[in-house]
Amino acid sequence: MRIGVLTGGGDCPGLNAVIRAVVRKGAGVYGHEFVGFRDGWRGPLEGDTMTLDVQAVRGILPRGGTILGSSRTNPIKIEGGVERIKENLETHGVDALIAIGGEDTLGVAKQLFDRGVKVVGVPKTIDNDLNATDYTFGFDTAVNIAMEAIDRLHTTAESHHRALICEVMGRHAGWIALHAGMAAGANVILIPEKPFDIDKVCEYVESRFKTRYSPIIVVAEGAHPIEGQMAVQTGDLDAFGHVRLGGVGERLAQEIERRTGKEARTTVLGHIQRGGTPTAYDRVLATRFGLAAITAVHDGDYGKMVGLQGTEIVRVGLDAATAELKTVPPHRYEEAEVFFG
Amino acid sequence: MRIGVLTGGGDCPGLNAVIRAVVRKGAGVYGHEFVGFRDGWRGPLEGDTMTLDVQAVRGILPRGGTILGSSRTNPIKIEGGVERIKENLETHGVDALIAIGGEDTLGVAKQLFDRGVKVVGVPKTIDNDLNATDYTFGFDTAVNIAMEAIDRLHTTAESHHRALICEVMGRHAGWIALHAGMAAGANVILIPEKPFDIDKVCEYVESRFKTRYSPIIVVAEGAHPIEGQMAVQTGDLDAFGHVRLGGVGERLAQEIERRTGKEARTTVLGHIQRGGTPTAYDRVLATRFGLAAITAVHDGDYGKMVGLQGTEIVRVGLDAATAELKTVPPHRYEEAEVFFG
Amino acid sequence: MRIGVLTGGGDCPGLNAVIRAVVRKGAGVYGHEFVGFRDGWRGPLEGDTMTLDVQAVRGILPRGGTILGSSRTNPIKIEGGVERIKENLETHGVDALIAIGGEDTLGVAKQLFDRGVKVVGVPKTIDNDLNATDYTFGFDTAVNIAMEAIDRLHTTAESHHRALICEVMGRHAGWIALHAGMAAGANVILIPEKPFDIDKVCEYVESRFKTRYSPIIVVAEGAHPIEGQMAVQTGDLDAFGHVRLGGVGERLAQEIERRTGKEARTTVLGHIQRGGTPTAYDRVLATRFGLAAITAVHDGDYGKMVGLQGTEIVRVGLDAATAELKTVPPHRYEEAEVFFG
Amino acid sequence: MRIGVLTGGGDCPGLNAVIRAVVRKGAGVYGHEFVGFRDGWRGPLEGDTMTLDVQAVRGILPRGGTILGSSRTNPIKIEGGVERIKENLETHGVDALIAIGGEDTLGVAKQLFDRGVKVVGVPKTIDNDLNATDYTFGFDTAVNIAMEAIDRLHTTAESHHRALICEVMGRHAGWIALHAGMAAGANVILIPEKPFDIDKVCEYVESRFKTRYSPIIVVAEGAHPIEGQMAVQTGDLDAFGHVRLGGVGERLAQEIERRTGKEARTTVLGHIQRGGTPTAYDRVLATRFGLAAITAVHDGDYGKMVGLQGTEIVRVGLDAATAELKTVPPHRYEEAEVFFG
Repeated sequence: MRIGVLTGGGDCPGLNAVIRAVVRKGAGVYGHEFVGFRDGWRGPLEGDTMTLDVQAVRGILPRGGTILGSSRTNPIKIEGGVERIKENLETHGVDALIAIGGEDTLGVAKQLFDRGVKVVGVPKTIDNDLNATDYTFGFDTAVNIAMEAIDRLHTTAESHHRALICEVMGRHAGWIALHAGMAAGANVILIPEKPFDIDKVCEYVESRFKTRYSPIIVVAEGAHPIEGQMAVQTGDLDAFGHVRLGGVGERLAQEIERRTGKEARTTVLGHIQRGGTPTAYDRVLATRFGLAAITAVHDGDYGKMVGLQGTEIVRVGLDAATAELKTVPPHRYEEAEVFFG
Repeated sequence: MRIGVLTGGGDCPGLNAVIRAVVRKGAGVYGHEFVGFRDGWRGPLEGDTMTLDVQAVRGILPRGGTILGSSRTNPIKIEGGVERIKENLETHGVDALIAIGGEDTLGVAKQLFDRGVKVVGVPKTIDNDLNATDYTFGFDTAVNIAMEAIDRLHTTAESHHRALICEVMGRHAGWIALHAGMAAGANVILIPEKPFDIDKVCEYVESRFKTRYSPIIVVAEGAHPIEGQMAVQTGDLDAFGHVRLGGVGERLAQEIERRTGKEARTTVLGHIQRGGTPTAYDRVLATRFGLAAITAVHDGDYGKMVGLQGTEIVRVGLDAATAELKTVPPHRYEEAEVFFG
Repeated sequence: MRIGVLTGGGDCPGLNAVIRAVVRKGAGVYGHEFVGFRDGWRGPLEGDTMTLDVQAVRGILPRGGTILGSSRTNPIKIEGGVERIKENLETHGVDALIAIGGEDTLGVAKQLFDRGVKVVGVPKTIDNDLNATDYTFGFDTAVNIAMEAIDRLHTTAESHHRALICEVMGRHAGWIALHAGMAAGANVILIPEKPFDIDKVCEYVESRFKTRYSPIIVVAEGAHPIEGQMAVQTGDLDAFGHVRLGGVGERLAQEIERRTGKEARTTVLGHIQRGGTPTAYDRVLATRFGLAAITAVHDGDYGKMVGLQGTEIVRVGLDAATAELKTVPPHRYEEAEVFFG
Repeated sequence: MRIGVLTGGGDCPGLNAVIRAVVRKGAGVYGHEFVGFRDGWRGPLEGDTMTLDVQAVRGILPRGGTILGSSRTNPIKIEGGVERIKENLETHGVDALIAIGGEDTLGVAKQLFDRGVKVVGVPKTIDNDLNATDYTFGFDTAVNIAMEAIDRLHTTAESHHRALICEVMGRHAGWIALHAGMAAGANVILIPEKPFDIDKVCEYVESRFKTRYSPIIVVAEGAHPIEGQMAVQTGDLDAFGHVRLGGVGERLAQEIERRTGKEARTTVLGHIQRGGTPTAYDRVLATRFGLAAITAVHDGDYGKMVGLQGTEIVRVGLDAATAELKTVPPHRYEEAEVFFG
């Protein structure tokens, strides 16, 4: 068999581990051949391929990013896009496709499957907001990077009298903020799922200043105040659809300074949260996802994606990924609230 | 209520996070008081206590080890030990006890519960070999430390021609070796669950040497060869019941050198695997265990221990911990074998 | 003897190591007593002290920040400030003072010395811009933190097509940008010492985009374009005299997007550069500074500060610190330019 | 010009950074061509070469080890070895040679230079024991790795009652033990330069046990007791001339257990000290060494090696490296002794 592989959407530590596992088991155990498509769906759309064999995946396990490149190209939004992909897969003699990506990438995979393409999906989101899997790789790495940054802020919080704000990723779901904030002992955690009360936030800030320690506030980029309460919006989008600096973290700092008269400083972690070598958790999970995906292809069990349930890798329908966003449930946020103030 | 807390057995990153969560929620939400018992069961046995309040747990979240100290003191093996503990608990006005520890510690907790003491347990084992919980805190940290060490060995493996052996913890279960070895791309992983075939190991070593890269072998301290096959024993025990250097890693090195004529070097990670700041995963898990334990006390649900199932914290019987050792199942080892050689 | 110790200015990894070394050698070898003044010069100004003995410095070596607290209080700018300090030192029976800090703190120390106070200084600046010492502690830690962040950006640079900008500390001197940028393989490094040519920067960006890799630009917060060339200013100051987000990194991103039509993303590292545990280099240097400072006190050699020259710790005049800013010399920047583009 | 490059001796973080700097400046600024010789002197001896151009050095800056491979092959000990190297250099059209290595490698370089070969040397030793340079790259990385390991041991030392021994590299010089031990707050540091008094060591151990903390002892692999005092030898050599496990650390543990009756545990860091990504310090130093070496070649200033003096890179004679070993001077060890016990 000849199997195509692509990675779509934002880069995420562990993508290379998935690719390596797919190729190592596919070539070594099953004797399959592989073709790499470059830059997500742009690859099969334009017929842009690269060599993908055991040699190509040597040494990539500990490396973040993706050797295949990535993009947000969406063939569904392109006139005749899906048809061109089908043609190109045929041209390159591709029998089956493994698509590694988030909601958008897997949504395209589902449509291709519905039109007869043999596809298996691997879920990917650094935000951990995909249903049908307990966790996704990349999330643990992002949480550790954010935690280490917040750990460092504690040093300053113990030495100076300033409110310290750390803005982390999470446009629609607060998982990174929740886990990094709990792990690093934040005094307040703000997530998109629960509009925050700026009066309450300033109360925590004031009460913390009464100790010899300064408050640390972790805020997801998508968090926002109760409507009308504060002149803060969620952050302007730039020309590429991303939140600009001057987002919620920075605006929160201005509001806290204005209300409490105490200095407030913001750190925006940005892209460093999705870069660098994956943690052990993400390398193992990504490797297991890759092994399970190639096994599904070998079993001819298409239209599925792999997922984690408890300690086991399972197969679920490709549409499970695109059903509903997995947001932070109230009882998890309440756990964190125990430590606020 | 006045609640005693103790930590028993080997130290483990995350113990302090459990203690902090217990005290922060117990004091802050429920208004309970706490007393810390020093050095595991030695504390209540000898009535050795320390102050345990919100001030005492400040800043301990990121710190490995345990502020309460630990020991392997087992009151069951001491004439009248259990009775003395009951008396001392009464003397110190302790209404309930939270015992954080492994198989031994929780076994004592079970016996105390059977004799009427109100106990809740929190499972702890760096080896991840306790049943009734998907994972235990400390394990993820140990795996990451071992993975980073093995990552470093790759550098040497790419520059020199030597078999590199890394001996990691795991007397009875190979979880650390399996996860660290998979995460770091080991060429062979040896675990206690499956006696190894030294001929096969040397085959992998030889085949690897034919590339420009040197083989890296990860071996759990409790791994052993097929009976009679090799003059290697699992390692002498020292006066304190621990495996001495000159354990399986070192003996394996000698055997590989003898058989292949290639140099072999061993690194024994030892205690550094259980030290230092916990990973985010372990801090979050330990914190959630602590919250769940104090909630169980508050609910009066004694004789239970907390555990992780999927993404949720549950309560199971105290005896669930001491039932059977959770070893690496064959299908998990087979996943790793895909990458051998 | 009874010796006062204080730490002034921004916090810096290694301050605690200095304090520990001063106390351990002063108490253990010379038999001196110590008194800690809180929050820099505010401590002796207001007579705010804390216990400072061997017990107080236990375990602080690996911890960032300062157990003494810090502030930017400048007694020279306060009517009668210097006199009040002299009185308070007498009141607390302080025979000599060790002042750990940057240009401002050591400037005050010099004035006190000129008025008869027995002072020894320890230089501190995370920016490495103090004369009279080859390096200052905290700098190496900041450079490593920045390097690791830029290392992580490389992952994204290999997977996506975006200009990535990393803004690091350095208002007046570009040392952190230079070293972190060289260490992490930046494609362009911009420092305050050399106004940048935005046309040239965009040329590097464009030429890099022609490879499969994206450009990474490291910019010191104090860097600025050639006059009149770009609508970018160095960043507004906030009410506390600090550069606001929306500083040079963010403005550079906007300018690059406007000129090249390529997406540009900025990460502002901010306070995480000065937090967390010090590197080995900084712990050793800080410890040696502390030992040398207490030895100078013991020798009665006041009005001096300690410094590093080559591999040895020397004593220089307190005014050496406040003479001239140590900026990046042209030949060091030219070394880095070899790797631009 | 066509310039050969080789790396000899044990691998060392920063080697790749040197190679990259040599090639980037040599090709990019001077327009030279390069040829890589594999595995140290084995390369020119056997005419084993590899492509070495800008493409080959892409992405290697943060990677430990050496893309050229290394070996301990010494052509001087091989009949006609030096002549064969001269012939092979001619065959491959090599005009000049850059040799990166330690005492042995640079000794060969010196002999070749004496016979008319145009050579420039770059000093390399992870042990920091080469004269004629303040520091060598790789050392800072090794010290940080050892420090982090010892930091982790502190956790156990605070939780259990055991003497913890950490054996680090340093056969002839104790620099790594000294710096890592000082940085991590070791209670005793033992180095080859000063034979240790086992009675004194046990005194420190006993006195430390009287606190609630356990002693941590850092010992260089080449440290040894005062003659006749202890049944410990420096460790057997294996067939490859390396110290076997069961070296000084392990023997010290046995002796401490025997004398004090307290448990003692040893960690042998081994090869992980020389692996992995270099620190910022080592990357900058190695890069500057590389730049200076190719500049020396360009200047036609042969028979020299580059070195660090203070903050500047200088050129010294090739024989400066092989003159005398740079050991820890007494005043540096006395600094560390302040913290013993």
